[in-house]
Amino acid sequence: MAIPCPHFIASEKAAMEAGLLLPSSSLSQLILTQDDLKKIAAYKAVEYVESGMVLGLGTGSTAKHAVDRIGELLHQGKLKDIVGIPTSKKTHEQALSLGIPLSDLDSHPVVDLAIDGADEVDPYLNLVKGRGGSLLREKMVEGACKKFVVIVDESKLVNYIGGSGLAMPVEVIQFCWKFTASRLQNLFQESGCVAKLRTLGEKAEPYVTDNGNYIIDLYFKQSIGDLKAASDSILQIAGVVEHGMFIDMATTVIVAGELGLTVKNK
Amino acid sequence: MAIPCPHFIASEKAAMEAGLLLPSSSLSQLILTQDDLKKIAAYKAVEYVESGMVLGLGTGSTAKHAVDRIGELLHQGKLKDIVGIPTSKKTHEQALSLGIPLSDLDSHPVVDLAIDGADEVDPYLNLVKGRGGSLLREKMVEGACKKFVVIVDESKLVNYIGGSGLAMPVEVIQFCWKFTASRLQNLFQESGCVAKLRTLGEKAEPYVTDNGNYIIDLYFKQSIGDLKAASDSILQIAGVVEHGMFIDMATTVIVAGELGLTVKNK
Repeated sequence: MAIPCPHFIASEKAAMEAGLLLPSSSLSQLILTQDDLKKIAAYKAVEYVESGMVLGLGTGSTAKHAVDRIGELLHQGKLKDIVGIPTSKKTHEQALSLGIPLSDLDSHPVVDLAIDGADEVDPYLNLVKGRGGSLLREKMVEGACKKFVVIVDESKLVNYIGGSGLAMPVEVIQFCWKFTASRLQNLFQESGCVAKLRTLGEKAEPYVTDNGNYIIDLYFKQSIGDLKAASDSILQIAGVVEHGMFIDMATTVIVAGELGLTVKNK
Repeated sequence: MAIPCPHFIASEKAAMEAGLLLPSSSLSQLILTQDDLKKIAAYKAVEYVESGMVLGLGTGSTAKHAVDRIGELLHQGKLKDIVGIPTSKKTHEQALSLGIPLSDLDSHPVVDLAIDGADEVDPYLNLVKGRGGSLLREKMVEGACKKFVVIVDESKLVNYIGGSGLAMPVEVIQFCWKFTASRLQNLFQESGCVAKLRTLGEKAEPYVTDNGNYIIDLYFKQSIGDLKAASDSILQIAGVVEHGMFIDMATTVIVAGELGLTVKNK
């Protein structure tokens, strides 16, 4: 019987820690889903956490596993005196429900470590984030970090930013968003850019961020070249609040894939 | 009797048009307030308006005179087929009450002419705007203009941006605004920058913009140097939505002062 897209893991230890493999299991029998890979990367990232740290808590399906794991280690007494800085209302609620003590950047402007997922990772560890809609708060928290550990499954690796063909999100104010979208699309005309308002549900209502803004998703057919120049050009457009490119921010990227875990350091 | 800060105007024609001088009056008897000067500059700017134009309508005490004048000329039939793009909810209401047909940038992405006041004008016609709180919408509309006529009384002329000692406003998202304010202040530490949240009323509630954001007012003791570099640095801070420096945007500045009207062109 053909199994679509199976993922095998070479690291027995990592799989066992993530509760995916009993000590007695045979590795060759193990079939891991994409979510399993996310969980393995997340558990590995939490090994960087030490008691007493101020922690940036990411948002999204991968980061969720890391937050769960931090909560678990706190309950087990293996971690103590953690202060979490959530990057979204959703993560705030998750962390609250796990009993993780929370604060914010106003009270804790220096963050020791942040752990978060990403939608794309390029060979220089630049990221696209924000397909989950929390790019602005994530960028604020993760920009304030001493260390920023990114956790992804290998499907997120790209040759260049935008290379997955999926969205690079830009948070914009609601006022005259069509005008802003048009300016964004024109900015990257040479890369075959298409700009689309992010919508939700059958009625296609605009998606509204935690900050009350809209998201314009940019799709590129080719590389946009110099990312720092692209970033400045986007931010110079009045109406743009922030974009989803996280340039030169990640210090470590943990990739879970068929061949096990890969840890890339800046 | 000593009269504090009197302003005399040399241009009889401009004063008459603004309804401040009867043909029979003697100019030497005329004492003009700062508001009179604003009105004279505004009326002069409206001379640039032609029938059929899409017009950016500014916000603030000086721009208000221009919008009033445009409404008047429409009613007199001296202007026709004007479409106004207001830069704030306040101007929207004012223009509506005057019967000026209105639209927005989504429907009219190219604006023929905008008229607006400014809080500071430097010798290169760079501006500070937004002490009235509408900097973002103003920058969107005025960035989409073929011509941008700025109207000020001479008290707004400065040697360098920030030189009045008054605020250069930055619109920021509410989330962790203290953290953002602190980053802004640190950015211009060498210019003796002080960052303050703009508040309203006796209870000192935060001022909230039309876009639901806060304003951080920056005060400088010295010039901040290269304005374009400063602009990029401000916009690169996650949490910043827009700032009040309008660099290289004004095409004409009309200054009303003691010695009459001065028109400066880019």
